[in-house]
Amino acid sequence: MKWQWQVLGAVCGGALLLGTGILLGHFAVPQAGDLDEKLIQDFMGQVESARIRENLRVLASRPHLATTPGDKALVQLLRQRWQDPQTGLDGVAEGTYDVFLSFPDPTHPNSVSICPPVLNGSRLFEARRSEKVLTPDQAQEDVVPPYAAYAPSGSPQGRLVYAHQGTRSDYETLVGLGLDLNGTIAIVRYGGAGRATKAVVGAEFGVAGLVVYTDPKDINDGRAGENDTYPNSWHLPPSGVERGSYTESFGDLLTPYYPAKEFTYRIKESEIQGIPPIPTQPIGFEDARTLICSLAGPEAPAAWQGALGCTYCIGPGFRMDGQFPSSSEVQVSVYNQRVIEKSANVMGFIRGSQEPDRYVLYGNHRDSWVHGAVDPGSGTAVMLEITRVLGKMLKEGTWRPRRSIIFGSWGAEEFGLIGSTEYTEEFSSKLQARSVAYINVDISVFANATLRGQGTPPAQSVIFTAAKQVPAPGSGTGSVYDNWRHHTNRSSPTYGVIPSLGSLGAGSDYASFIHYLGITSMDLAYTYDRSQTSARIYPAYHTAFDTFDYTDRFIDPGFTSHQAVARTAGNVLLRLADSLVLPLNVSDYGEALEGLYSVAAEGQVQADLAAHNISLAPLKAAINRFKAVATDFNQRLMKLKEESSPNPLEVRMVNDQIMLLERAFLDPRAFPSKYYYSHVLWTPRAAGVPTFPGLAEAHAARDWDAIRKHLSIATQAVESAASTLETPA
Amino acid sequence: MKWQWQVLGAVCGGALLLGTGILLGHFAVPQAGDLDEKLIQDFMGQVESARIRENLRVLASRPHLATTPGDKALVQLLRQRWQDPQTGLDGVAEGTYDVFLSFPDPTHPNSVSICPPVLNGSRLFEARRSEKVLTPDQAQEDVVPPYAAYAPSGSPQGRLVYAHQGTRSDYETLVGLGLDLNGTIAIVRYGGAGRATKAVVGAEFGVAGLVVYTDPKDINDGRAGENDTYPNSWHLPPSGVERGSYTESFGDLLTPYYPAKEFTYRIKESEIQGIPPIPTQPIGFEDARTLICSLAGPEAPAAWQGALGCTYCIGPGFRMDGQFPSSSEVQVSVYNQRVIEKSANVMGFIRGSQEPDRYVLYGNHRDSWVHGAVDPGSGTAVMLEITRVLGKMLKEGTWRPRRSIIFGSWGAEEFGLIGSTEYTEEFSSKLQARSVAYINVDISVFANATLRGQGTPPAQSVIFTAAKQVPAPGSGTGSVYDNWRHHTNRSSPTYGVIPSLGSLGAGSDYASFIHYLGITSMDLAYTYDRSQTSARIYPAYHTAFDTFDYTDRFIDPGFTSHQAVARTAGNVLLRLADSLVLPLNVSDYGEALEGLYSVAAEGQVQADLAAHNISLAPLKAAINRFKAVATDFNQRLMKLKEESSPNPLEVRMVNDQIMLLERAFLDPRAFPSKYYYSHVLWTPRAAGVPTFPGLAEAHAARDWDAIRKHLSIATQAVESAASTLETPA
Repeated sequence: MKWQWQVLGAVCGGALLLGTGILLGHFAVPQAGDLDEKLIQDFMGQVESARIRENLRVLASRPHLATTPGDKALVQLLRQRWQDPQTGLDGVAEGTYDVFLSFPDPTHPNSVSICPPVLNGSRLFEARRSEKVLTPDQAQEDVVPPYAAYAPSGSPQGRLVYAHQGTRSDYETLVGLGLDLNGTIAIVRYGGAGRATKAVVGAEFGVAGLVVYTDPKDINDGRAGENDTYPNSWHLPPSGVERGSYTESFGDLLTPYYPAKEFTYRIKESEIQGIPPIPTQPIGFEDARTLICSLAGPEAPAAWQGALGCTYCIGPGFRMDGQFPSSSEVQVSVYNQRVIEKSANVMGFIRGSQEPDRYVLYGNHRDSWVHGAVDPGSGTAVMLEITRVLGKMLKEGTWRPRRSIIFGSWGAEEFGLIGSTEYTEEFSSKLQARSVAYINVDISVFANATLRGQGTPPAQSVIFTAAKQVPAPGSGTGSVYDNWRHHTNRSSPTYGVIPSLGSLGAGSDYASFIHYLGITSMDLAYTYDRSQTSARIYPAYHTAFDTFDYTDRFIDPGFTSHQAVARTAGNVLLRLADSLVLPLNVSDYGEALEGLYSVAAEGQVQADLAAHNISLAPLKAAINRFKAVATDFNQRLMKLKEESSPNPLEVRMVNDQIMLLERAFLDPRAFPSKYYYSHVLWTPRAAGVPTFPGLAEAHAARDWDAIRKHLSIATQAVESAASTLETPA
Repeated sequence: MKWQWQVLGAVCGGALLLGTGILLGHFAVPQAGDLDEKLIQDFMGQVESARIRENLRVLASRPHLATTPGDKALVQLLRQRWQDPQTGLDGVAEGTYDVFLSFPDPTHPNSVSICPPVLNGSRLFEARRSEKVLTPDQAQEDVVPPYAAYAPSGSPQGRLVYAHQGTRSDYETLVGLGLDLNGTIAIVRYGGAGRATKAVVGAEFGVAGLVVYTDPKDINDGRAGENDTYPNSWHLPPSGVERGSYTESFGDLLTPYYPAKEFTYRIKESEIQGIPPIPTQPIGFEDARTLICSLAGPEAPAAWQGALGCTYCIGPGFRMDGQFPSSSEVQVSVYNQRVIEKSANVMGFIRGSQEPDRYVLYGNHRDSWVHGAVDPGSGTAVMLEITRVLGKMLKEGTWRPRRSIIFGSWGAEEFGLIGSTEYTEEFSSKLQARSVAYINVDISVFANATLRGQGTPPAQSVIFTAAKQVPAPGSGTGSVYDNWRHHTNRSSPTYGVIPSLGSLGAGSDYASFIHYLGITSMDLAYTYDRSQTSARIYPAYHTAFDTFDYTDRFIDPGFTSHQAVARTAGNVLLRLADSLVLPLNVSDYGEALEGLYSVAAEGQVQADLAAHNISLAPLKAAINRFKAVATDFNQRLMKLKEESSPNPLEVRMVNDQIMLLERAFLDPRAFPSKYYYSHVLWTPRAAGVPTFPGLAEAHAARDWDAIRKHLSIATQAVESAASTLETPA
């Protein structure tokens, strides 16, 4: 009897243990771990400023204009780094596109010159054709002369006028002052309007040729002398010329909405919209001074005056008492060539362990105008340090992300975000279905004062979390977050005083990700103390002075700001890739919607709408619904996070809701005339107050029917977003 | 020592058992079961023909034109059935839209009449204003008089001409014969062109008013006498008139691309495209005979002759020796009213147990023109039987699907697929992200000869599997599949002789699901033996004779075809909702692509392309790539299916690839002039050979540039689809 009981006991006990084991195994053993905070600390600890500096030295060692040998050398460098056996990624691929570019003709240099009244082939003056060489690392080989990409060839000649920034209102002012702009050559300064717009609008007014320069007032806080400028300070030397792409839209101009592959249909060059219809050429302020300070005519308005050291007159033509005969004309000669060239994106992949079909994207362009130490070298140097540390962890077997990570080194960004745009076109369907977020770090350090974060509202939470974990460079104490909040903040109804997250325009490769595909995007950089400078951008931007030496001595000596950006961006990347539940707070969209709404619901807009019997009530109701649904969603999320072993499909479900929220704000029919702009909330406004962009533009145009239409579009987008966050069944 | 060993043994054994349990629990206990074939058999066994008959009797007991009291009563019926405590679903919701409709004016009946040469208010002839009442269940109450929905009001009067089917080439033929169509009234028969197109094109030729009728040749296999027609056979009685929506596009006409909610912006009525610009009215062939058989002028071409029992002449005006003075004119008086009415979709939900955020959709419209026993009652009767059986299993706790199921009873389909289209507009973002497939069963039984399956290629496999499991009605042996293959087959390079799956046009509510949202869709019905009849459609279509009695006696006595459709559609539904891996075979798209390609690569198209130096090579390369990738994908799938406990996230990943494949063929910019048509492969062709629709139309128009463009669009779509099926990382 005793023996039988023992057997029975053993059998029962065994069964109990086996059963307990089965239950434990099924329910308690997590399917996959959550984010490892220690790993994030390890990552950040391994990011070395010295390595970023060394990356930049190599990257900026020679010019690498898109598709030139310097660019191709960097393609090989990227491949090598990402294929390194010790610190490489899982895989590397090249995506090539046949893209439409514009280069100066090496055998016929562009020129801006003053012709004598009686034409004899001689020149009274000619602007420099290239910048002065001021430092050894500013090697001349391969430096592309200053030019306006996509400006057409031609040699118009005419009397010179000064048209300030070349905006529509600037040209109107000149006409209002009695000037006949037909056949003139206009000189305008950078700023106030897009590069191409200055020429497109000028041509409408009859301007025959355009000269563009950078005024020391706008870029150098007024300093214009050689002693005050690089290599003696970070300021732009008098011979420095900002190059640039003169296009109003982005992406390959011949293949809108389609990847520029060999098989792709191309529109005719004559069908391209938004490039200069007239020859256009940029020059330095040393030469601009010669032209502007000699102008005849009435004094330009006070707001048009600059820092060239003379009173700016508007022309037309030159002063009687000046250095040139007053009837002398200015000639702009452009010999740019439009070509189709093969441009490569270099893509690096890390396979996700649990959700390989969810992508966290991180990118920066590779091409530069000249040496491009700051633009984009500072960003690529940071990206390479991030991939080195991650690659090391990967190869050592200490880490593999939950989701896949895709790194992109985009080609031909300087010509109009071409590489990234073609990529989003080629893989639109797949990227929209699978992408969690896109992180862009182009210029990583403009200056070493504070973080600048831009992004859509869901990005705020993850950027803040990361920024709080990174010590601010330079200062003794405090985090990148604290320092940011100190420099740029706002008062949030939800959180109190917080750093101000900027919105995304179309300034870098995030444009097609956010505006075309509706993928939550962000852009991170260190930037200026705005109380110290009013420079439009860092002074060497797009010039031959954007060199390693320039960065090393003036932008970020010690590279600690680079390091801080690498740590912050890498931290964000790891959180997005590894967190069980995506660290994007959907309810922050509620506050953003309220912000956009409040502008429409008060002041002149509100008064105008009321006067035309247009109600904001449906939009308000939609926003209220969104906020309620987002709150509910976050409560469900909190419960799910508390579960010891949440159902993987349930986690996937909420993550998909978070991921696809941004997509719900897309409406490809909202702005039919604007290529790629589908995001109802963040499409850049051409005009008007900071509310919903369609509403703002329609209001600025006093188009009441369009206002009704855009209110309806915005309401439907918000309703759709709310619906995405509701419990699926 | 012995005692210690016993304890040690017990501990070790216990640990071993516990560990084994943990391992078993974690790896061997499936996360969720796969499809249960026995449950499918149970389901099919429970589908009762008698209940479908009874459903239909109730549904067709009174007319239920959209938004009328009869329609509202059915809304309540649907709600009641789906909320039934014993056989209901998890939830029911109504989605209402303010939709633009057109009804005749009850106080001013429309008319078609012959006026005497000297107008005195009298009429020499007037067409019937309503159909004869031939059976008791054809109750007159609420029967809407025949009319052409959306035709404008007006009373044009002019000489009568016969314009065959009112196609462009028909009107051109008349002009070629010397007729001046300006100010005429044209009589045309149904068929050959869309309803609205007959009026839109006629107006271009100067036609002032349109009369439309159904020729007995086209609908009755020639039979026109009262003894040959209903209630003595299924043929259309002489007084029968086909009503219909006269629109070229679908969806609410005032809110294209947006849900017709109260807040939604509406275009002006004058901006609506594709509705008749001239008064238009349909009549029965009894009255058409009076008009056509009295016409003067030359004999109409042989192909234009019909079965009215006289020689058709083209006019203008009446014969000298006929019953009307030859200078008599015909007047078409239309008093239709355009209104905005609230229309409801009734939605029924079953929550998925494992993947509630994946939707299998099943729908049919609820509104009819009159009693609508066949259209759409036969489909709704089937849907209600399917939901009854599923609801019972659900309430009994014997079943809950893996994925969510959404049933839709769409409103206002007859006016242009309005309810379903507004639904896809309101929830476009969510539906695109979550929908596995849409099953449409509108008219479930046209006739009782064979299954008719339509759908995109991935639907083929699941329809075939289901159809093989359902016994064919009527015949002693064989399955629905066998019978279908017997009636309509093709030779597949992959499978040999198989039933021929038709492609989806825009004939029912699947249109916006497949063409606008790119959701794999299918339509199932029982239909004619084409060797027995050439009727354009079942003869009582859209007339007052489409009653329960008509169905019960002539369409499907015994309701066994209804039962077969219910079993097949329900079987498909269960497979889509319950299968661990989605039963949609992606590689069937490879064969479909080859089929479309082969038409372009041979004969005249190929010769024309070669003559214009247009290469098909990139398209061919893309198709080859697709086929290779699809084969690989299916091999991975097979491995996954063999695993005893596959990783749920891995299963989800491949299912998402399958689900989203159809989306990759969407290109919202492919056909900018066609509302909602974004599917590069299945957009209906206006003209040309059966290849890629953009290519076919461009080729028909001899537009070589457009051909290049559409080849590029098709190539990119196929590349994108291939890319979707590649391993995600």
